[in-house]
Amino acid sequence: MTEPTKSQEYSREEVGLALRNHGMHLEGLRYPVTPVGMHYLLIHYDIPFIDATTYELPVGGLVRNPLRLTLDDLKTRPAVTVPVVMECSGNGRAHLYPRPVSAPWREEAVGCAEWTGTPLRPILQEARLSDEAVEVVFAGYDRGVEGGVEQDFERSLPLEDALDDGVMLAYGMNGGPLPPQHGFPLRLIVPEWYGMASVKWLKEIRAIGEPFEGFQQTDRYRHKQSEEGPGSPMTRKNPHALMVPPGIPDYLSRVRHVRAGRTLVEGRAWSGWAPIESVEFSPDDGRTWDAAALGEPIGHYAWRPWSYEWDAEPGEHELCVRATDASGRTQPTDNDEAWNYGGYGANVLQRVPVIVD
Amino acid sequence: MTEPTKSQEYSREEVGLALRNHGMHLEGLRYPVTPVGMHYLLIHYDIPFIDATTYELPVGGLVRNPLRLTLDDLKTRPAVTVPVVMECSGNGRAHLYPRPVSAPWREEAVGCAEWTGTPLRPILQEARLSDEAVEVVFAGYDRGVEGGVEQDFERSLPLEDALDDGVMLAYGMNGGPLPPQHGFPLRLIVPEWYGMASVKWLKEIRAIGEPFEGFQQTDRYRHKQSEEGPGSPMTRKNPHALMVPPGIPDYLSRVRHVRAGRTLVEGRAWSGWAPIESVEFSPDDGRTWDAAALGEPIGHYAWRPWSYEWDAEPGEHELCVRATDASGRTQPTDNDEAWNYGGYGANVLQRVPVIVD
Repeated sequence: MTEPTKSQEYSREEVGLALRNHGMHLEGLRYPVTPVGMHYLLIHYDIPFIDATTYELPVGGLVRNPLRLTLDDLKTRPAVTVPVVMECSGNGRAHLYPRPVSAPWREEAVGCAEWTGTPLRPILQEARLSDEAVEVVFAGYDRGVEGGVEQDFERSLPLEDALDDGVMLAYGMNGGPLPPQHGFPLRLIVPEWYGMASVKWLKEIRAIGEPFEGFQQTDRYRHKQSEEGPGSPMTRKNPHALMVPPGIPDYLSRVRHVRAGRTLVEGRAWSGWAPIESVEFSPDDGRTWDAAALGEPIGHYAWRPWSYEWDAEPGEHELCVRATDASGRTQPTDNDEAWNYGGYGANVLQRVPVIVD
Repeated sequence: MTEPTKSQEYSREEVGLALRNHGMHLEGLRYPVTPVGMHYLLIHYDIPFIDATTYELPVGGLVRNPLRLTLDDLKTRPAVTVPVVMECSGNGRAHLYPRPVSAPWREEAVGCAEWTGTPLRPILQEARLSDEAVEVVFAGYDRGVEGGVEQDFERSLPLEDALDDGVMLAYGMNGGPLPPQHGFPLRLIVPEWYGMASVKWLKEIRAIGEPFEGFQQTDRYRHKQSEEGPGSPMTRKNPHALMVPPGIPDYLSRVRHVRAGRTLVEGRAWSGWAPIESVEFSPDDGRTWDAAALGEPIGHYAWRPWSYEWDAEPGEHELCVRATDASGRTQPTDNDEAWNYGGYGANVLQRVPVIVD
């Protein structure tokens, strides 16, 4: 892995990743369901070009009843449609110092789509997992070279997580078919975890008898303080609140211009550990905090809306927002607390510079 | 305007623009019609949030019969569905040296969508332009600060261009409604021009008696060699060919890995001046060129497919492609020939580094 950089500027490679891996426009937080094309994307290699008419998903490995599922098979199974907040585990990375070198996300690597598909558990039950099975590997059709290793994108889930409520195979998004860039024709959705678990363009599901040691499991997506050591695996989303930046932006700097007076600031908050219990707003870069009003999310895995009536006084301000969930987890006020070698799970505070006049 | 930079690294502002302004994944060149969410986006300010049920478009200024059109009015008029290559006039900017500071596009600021709407000419005829009218201004609901000027995004077209075949008001994209980020509920499409002319989130159409002097007309989108002087306005798209990068990518560098042997390289080419007449492929960074095979575009304003059977020999290569149109315009082999102060219309060659083994 590339050494984190102390440069305030960005390399050609980081910009290349930013151009391909789309961020959600923060004004997209206005929508309970993020429109296609505003949802974030993180695509390790290329978007595969897959013929849905001949598509088949093998379910094998340590199972007593291997399956091969066509899209029609999957669509005749019980269908669910579920809004799910998806967030890249690299979200917040560019706020860390030194900055880990990969997709240079600030806070825009998020979205909440309505996924349509069928639950995974009954499929694994039908395949009859062997007693030796401990994990389930999900392989994608996206192939590339990373850290010098040629590979398909592959991730595993421990058995209990693969069998969890909410885990599904999705063939639809926001009422339409899955778009190519979101995993057409079929992807996994692991609703409470960071996005790397929700493998796109599914090529194979296989049960295995030992913990998976693939590159994306053991080399990437680990929370650790140096290049060495296994660290701990990234799993569930940390609590995170974001606001729609108020007022109007400057084109280049994105600094906001707001008219003085009462300003309704709105946003959404989520956590993969427990429901959101409170959201606080700070008009002064975290020196003082005040409780925001909470609305109801449109689903168990969706984000929770919040709002705050801010009395905008002339001058320069830095607005922040902070979420706390029912497990007691919250967001750090100091970015250094979130620092880790790969820049994962960094739920640092969104800071919005605003000029009020 | 910010002075062009000689830095090989990129500023925080440029990265911010790259995260918001989505590039087309180059593998998206496989599709004759670019899927929503893969098409490029350039959004100067914020995506406006517009209520379509109360939406009305005024057509006024120097007209004898001012109109106010609802979406229903527009949808009862004759409908057309047209595939159009849209390209940001800043595409290629990041290949220039020194690099103009704005959205740091390489070649991904492009897409070809199928737009549905109604032709503009009959609407202007119904509004009965005054004899004094010389231009038509199109204002958008997107508002922000740019170059120190608070403004709506506004652009004009000379009368003859506004009345041209193909110019339309679009309310649909790729068979669905216009997505918010592409101009919902209504946008202009000027099919042969660069994207800045196709104003999104239309707020007003007004005929004027003098050439328009708005910021986006006279300060931005001008081809000039220094900060001073008016330069010439950006209008039609220069010829441009792109390839789907062959093989598989390295995650960070995007360098391609290709197996030795015959490799079909495919892509698309377009020009806003005249039909594409030839596409040439170079396996050696432009030292030698060979004619590619041409297919037929799916429409007059769509891109033209091409392909080339490349015999990939082991080693490192730099692949290029070059388009020439029926007006004789082609792409420069030397990036400096395309240099201009704002980095507009820079149809420099795509260069794809490939390792064959």
